[in-house]
Amino acid sequence: MAGSTFGNRISITTWGESHGAALGVVIDGFPAGLKLCAADIQMYLDRRKPGQSKFTTARAEGDEVEILSGVFEGRTTGTPISLMVRNNDQHSKDYGDIATTYRPGHADFGFHEKFGFRDYRGGGRSSGRETIGRVAAGAICAKLLRELGIEVFAYTKSIGDITISDFELGYRDQNPLAMPDSKAADDAAEYLAACMLNNDSAGGVIECVITGVPAGIGDPVFDKLDAKLAQAVVSIGAVKGVEIGDGFKASKNVGSLNNDEFEMNCEKVVKATNHSGGILGGISDGDDIILRAAIKPTPSISKMQHTVNEAGEEVDIEIHGRHDPIIVPRAVVVVEAMCAITVCDALLGHMTDRVEYIKEFYKN
Amino acid sequence: MAGSTFGNRISITTWGESHGAALGVVIDGFPAGLKLCAADIQMYLDRRKPGQSKFTTARAEGDEVEILSGVFEGRTTGTPISLMVRNNDQHSKDYGDIATTYRPGHADFGFHEKFGFRDYRGGGRSSGRETIGRVAAGAICAKLLRELGIEVFAYTKSIGDITISDFELGYRDQNPLAMPDSKAADDAAEYLAACMLNNDSAGGVIECVITGVPAGIGDPVFDKLDAKLAQAVVSIGAVKGVEIGDGFKASKNVGSLNNDEFEMNCEKVVKATNHSGGILGGISDGDDIILRAAIKPTPSISKMQHTVNEAGEEVDIEIHGRHDPIIVPRAVVVVEAMCAITVCDALLGHMTDRVEYIKEFYKN
Amino acid sequence: MAGSTFGNRISITTWGESHGAALGVVIDGFPAGLKLCAADIQMYLDRRKPGQSKFTTARAEGDEVEILSGVFEGRTTGTPISLMVRNNDQHSKDYGDIATTYRPGHADFGFHEKFGFRDYRGGGRSSGRETIGRVAAGAICAKLLRELGIEVFAYTKSIGDITISDFELGYRDQNPLAMPDSKAADDAAEYLAACMLNNDSAGGVIECVITGVPAGIGDPVFDKLDAKLAQAVVSIGAVKGVEIGDGFKASKNVGSLNNDEFEMNCEKVVKATNHSGGILGGISDGDDIILRAAIKPTPSISKMQHTVNEAGEEVDIEIHGRHDPIIVPRAVVVVEAMCAITVCDALLGHMTDRVEYIKEFYKN
Amino acid sequence: MAGSTFGNRISITTWGESHGAALGVVIDGFPAGLKLCAADIQMYLDRRKPGQSKFTTARAEGDEVEILSGVFEGRTTGTPISLMVRNNDQHSKDYGDIATTYRPGHADFGFHEKFGFRDYRGGGRSSGRETIGRVAAGAICAKLLRELGIEVFAYTKSIGDITISDFELGYRDQNPLAMPDSKAADDAAEYLAACMLNNDSAGGVIECVITGVPAGIGDPVFDKLDAKLAQAVVSIGAVKGVEIGDGFKASKNVGSLNNDEFEMNCEKVVKATNHSGGILGGISDGDDIILRAAIKPTPSISKMQHTVNEAGEEVDIEIHGRHDPIIVPRAVVVVEAMCAITVCDALLGHMTDRVEYIKEFYKN
Repeated sequence: MAGSTFGNRISITTWGESHGAALGVVIDGFPAGLKLCAADIQMYLDRRKPGQSKFTTARAEGDEVEILSGVFEGRTTGTPISLMVRNNDQHSKDYGDIATTYRPGHADFGFHEKFGFRDYRGGGRSSGRETIGRVAAGAICAKLLRELGIEVFAYTKSIGDITISDFELGYRDQNPLAMPDSKAADDAAEYLAACMLNNDSAGGVIECVITGVPAGIGDPVFDKLDAKLAQAVVSIGAVKGVEIGDGFKASKNVGSLNNDEFEMNCEKVVKATNHSGGILGGISDGDDIILRAAIKPTPSISKMQHTVNEAGEEVDIEIHGRHDPIIVPRAVVVVEAMCAITVCDALLGHMTDRVEYIKEFYKN
Repeated sequence: MAGSTFGNRISITTWGESHGAALGVVIDGFPAGLKLCAADIQMYLDRRKPGQSKFTTARAEGDEVEILSGVFEGRTTGTPISLMVRNNDQHSKDYGDIATTYRPGHADFGFHEKFGFRDYRGGGRSSGRETIGRVAAGAICAKLLRELGIEVFAYTKSIGDITISDFELGYRDQNPLAMPDSKAADDAAEYLAACMLNNDSAGGVIECVITGVPAGIGDPVFDKLDAKLAQAVVSIGAVKGVEIGDGFKASKNVGSLNNDEFEMNCEKVVKATNHSGGILGGISDGDDIILRAAIKPTPSISKMQHTVNEAGEEVDIEIHGRHDPIIVPRAVVVVEAMCAITVCDALLGHMTDRVEYIKEFYKN
Repeated sequence: MAGSTFGNRISITTWGESHGAALGVVIDGFPAGLKLCAADIQMYLDRRKPGQSKFTTARAEGDEVEILSGVFEGRTTGTPISLMVRNNDQHSKDYGDIATTYRPGHADFGFHEKFGFRDYRGGGRSSGRETIGRVAAGAICAKLLRELGIEVFAYTKSIGDITISDFELGYRDQNPLAMPDSKAADDAAEYLAACMLNNDSAGGVIECVITGVPAGIGDPVFDKLDAKLAQAVVSIGAVKGVEIGDGFKASKNVGSLNNDEFEMNCEKVVKATNHSGGILGGISDGDDIILRAAIKPTPSISKMQHTVNEAGEEVDIEIHGRHDPIIVPRAVVVVEAMCAITVCDALLGHMTDRVEYIKEFYKN
Repeated sequence: MAGSTFGNRISITTWGESHGAALGVVIDGFPAGLKLCAADIQMYLDRRKPGQSKFTTARAEGDEVEILSGVFEGRTTGTPISLMVRNNDQHSKDYGDIATTYRPGHADFGFHEKFGFRDYRGGGRSSGRETIGRVAAGAICAKLLRELGIEVFAYTKSIGDITISDFELGYRDQNPLAMPDSKAADDAAEYLAACMLNNDSAGGVIECVITGVPAGIGDPVFDKLDAKLAQAVVSIGAVKGVEIGDGFKASKNVGSLNNDEFEMNCEKVVKATNHSGGILGGISDGDDIILRAAIKPTPSISKMQHTVNEAGEEVDIEIHGRHDPIIVPRAVVVVEAMCAITVCDALLGHMTDRVEYIKEFYKN
């Protein structure tokens, strides 16, 4: 496996470059019988679509999804679902220096060393457009999860130093920064405007909450639910850290305060607190799953930077063109997508965990 | 795959429970021809062995490794390396309440929900002893890496609120807390003593540095080098967060300061700073790889805690017995091991990245 | 994994249904730097294209391939290669009984039991058109193999009772049955004409030869080179058996005659005979790799057949429409493709088999 | 993956060499709650144990299995089951020429080319003893299958030219050749005695029947049930071919006779005949699954053979020592084991094939 495939039971394989003909994803192992139409997927893609505010690139892409296989008479068939989005607005410009210069903060140098050359147009495969396939696949997994009573939602928790103090999910979709707190969103917009004036960029933190996951989901050892979520989220470009529950704060706590006590509630085992973030020993504990991803500032800035080109010469570079001054708001739906895929995959895994389940299933 | 296997080319499969007959690991895909003897592995196992200071459990285990296969005349053969450690000090005690009570902060409840019952002796498979297989496999990968000029070393960065301010690697192995700073180690020992007096436990942060990794290592998209490192590290029990390079701090920075400029040094492309932590776009950039793992306080404490048992009754529990008041120092070598395995696997992957490499290899 | 992906290092994922919008394949892990254009792939697709003789279905499909990603400036980039073929000639006919009736010899009943419903149009995912993705991927692997001096070629060995007795590879592409023996091809054509007159169909055997594979390729145990070839070939619809080297005949031989003696030839170890078919203990022995696949007669026949429908009623059915009276000739290139993919994957694997190779690779 | 692991949900990893310390297997993903003790496994191992008749090697091995993990209070726990068999009778003899000479018909040369050197003692990893892990894992899968009403049984179908004409399963275990036909067993014994007198060896065909598998099992495309069975069976050393149902004979048939008509029986869809061998389009059709494996003659013979040594010199060799004059009878249980593992894995896969199954499972 060369890393473009994720998931054990539901496995998704993404493909496509920023300025190639198209991008897409193949979802294998998705169960048969889910009602599905392009609109279900488009809804998610529209949330990551560029050009929706002054804080996102002006690249004009409709990002319209086409279902190429795996759906028949409005339902998934159990066979691979192939989804494609054509690239339309590939400026066939002269890439000039960019073609041979390693942009700071980007994968240019790494790709060159790895493959010997690289598709320099818009970052090629390392572009944020690669996430189109993830979001499309995530939309389908999220739809299945909703039918099981599981909701996945993410939002911007902080931008630069500005952190939400209020929480009103409804507000998330009413501001271009995906913050569920109007005051913080206003402050962040101001901070971002200053960054942009300065030809600079900003970063932030995305939080994702998954409700309704029953206890007992996840595989011990290497495929712990949090370990797979960590891989899923860190695999999104620009993510530099991930936390589950109290995360790094837990490292400063003592056991008696960090442990969540169990208690009974309506004949169900529940936890009195949720420092664990819904996962203990890699297995869901029935509580809300909570994680956070740290996103670095967009590396593409129009400020002058010092770097090196393929010929081994030191050069200065200004990256002009269409770049988001912040990746965070558009990455919110990508985090949601990756979490939905990961949880969906783990849920399927649990169905074969006990001999009694298997005997019950095959009893007829 | 049910989660006990990790790695694409070199894949390790661990097995064993805390109080079962033995624990071990099978390493498949390890290349032939590495000089290897039990002492190479024992050296690493001894670093995680219990009973070495007042800050670790008094359980008396020699943790002596036996090489069962894959080594012939002192060299690896290319076939699976099977390693085993017998459990000796399984107190055949009466587990009493523990057997049917869900310990707060532990995986007991999750395992019960997942599998319908559980090996309650010392946490069974979710015990820290599961890491024996990881450390044994990591020792072998680390040995191969050293032959390629790559060093992996981890240390305790902080315990509770006490963070190292000095760095002298040699000191790491001279104090029971694996801190490379004598002043911090003393302060932390004092803090821990207080926790223990209070029947409580503590957490901390482990930092791992990997030097000598060439640029171009790692797979784009889901198996990015940092994504696999994140999975590897978060899969260690008690880890609640992971950061690469500046991590969460990067989210507060601006692009112009977070980007690392490239420059030439002795005809090599190098970076002037290392905010990236040695990985850009999921691919190594030639700089030191730096990551941090947040470890929660040991959940087993002798303080009274409220919880629930399998019968659905609320009960109080005091967990006596042999528990580490802090997991961090013994987990240092586990983090090292997981990083060594991950990097080793990625290094092998790069060898087939280019047609020119393949033609060169098969030219004769 | 749900079975639409094949290969460890180079992994291919196929998607698409007979009468869906399109079919295709994503090839992940293919090395960077191979010169590649659509014509390289089209050449192979044209060999399996329908409508080329009276012995193949009249369905009019150009099967024109589009490269959607993974190729830049005429070379593979190392990132996923996505290939697509649009379906054009999907007769939007009334499927009538076929939609709800289980055709004998087809996967209809199995798909229904597995997924609860099925895309009944032309067999959906179980159609022979699914092999388009395999052939497209195989074309690329075959091109890489040729650059390493490895040739993969298959041909029709027998149709019904008529077996080739002569061998002239050039003749294979000059008759519609892909037989490298003109006399046998004429006889087989006559036999097939009789079958068709009788509203019946025929089967046959395909032989594949792979030359130039060095000794030492393949993984011991479950991924033996012959085991993976067996999976690859039996995974082609309608294949009911596979043999390597002497195959079933070897079971009647004695050891002294079945063993191939080794000898020296120009300072190379070679075998005096090739009963093994180029593979011993699952690893290539340096000789030609030889395998045969048994193909059953096309199950779709216009002769009246007795069967059952989804309502559980016994019914009679005549399958009219566009069906090949024999699958063999068009499957020849599919066998070639699957063998090329399997060998390519195994060749890459060998590059990391020895520590000395790794040290040599990373010595700079 | 380097080929020592097999299976998607239940995955088994074998390890060990002929003359190493031990051999074994780790079974991951096996569901929790199956009653299991060593005797369940020993029963299968005893069927492949050496030294039970004059037709098997005199090597004296008890092949006693030890359960090292994954079983608690007599039931599987859902965590990895680790099984080990110690090697006792490793004659620490002088291997003399064997150590540096490539035995005809063996993997010696391939291993040397692959890994640069090899464990020459008894074939090392390519020894038939490698199958111990397979049989141990197969025993556990077979036990689970029996609880679901599925039986897997294999037997010797032919030895040399002598094929069974009668079938009485009970007789299989009453003759050393595992033939369910007393007349054929007697004839085969005579044939074998002649081979042995001549310092030669023989081959044969094993047939395996799997009853009770419901329709709908298996994954379309590359992991078709027959494709995985083919890989599983061909991965057993010495297997040179595999057939499902009519196999190669089907290639000579016409569609109208090879197709199995469906009919109703007690409100169940059944087939009137079983040319398909229970699998259509890679998915079980509800009928008995039938396959055959061709086993070559034992390559180790004491007759003089011409070959080459590591120094590149042509030499003559006589292989004395403890070798089976025929592999077939002891391989019968290995074929059974591999089929049990493959079917078990596929059965689990089906449980997540439909959204309705998932909703039913998680409805509470």
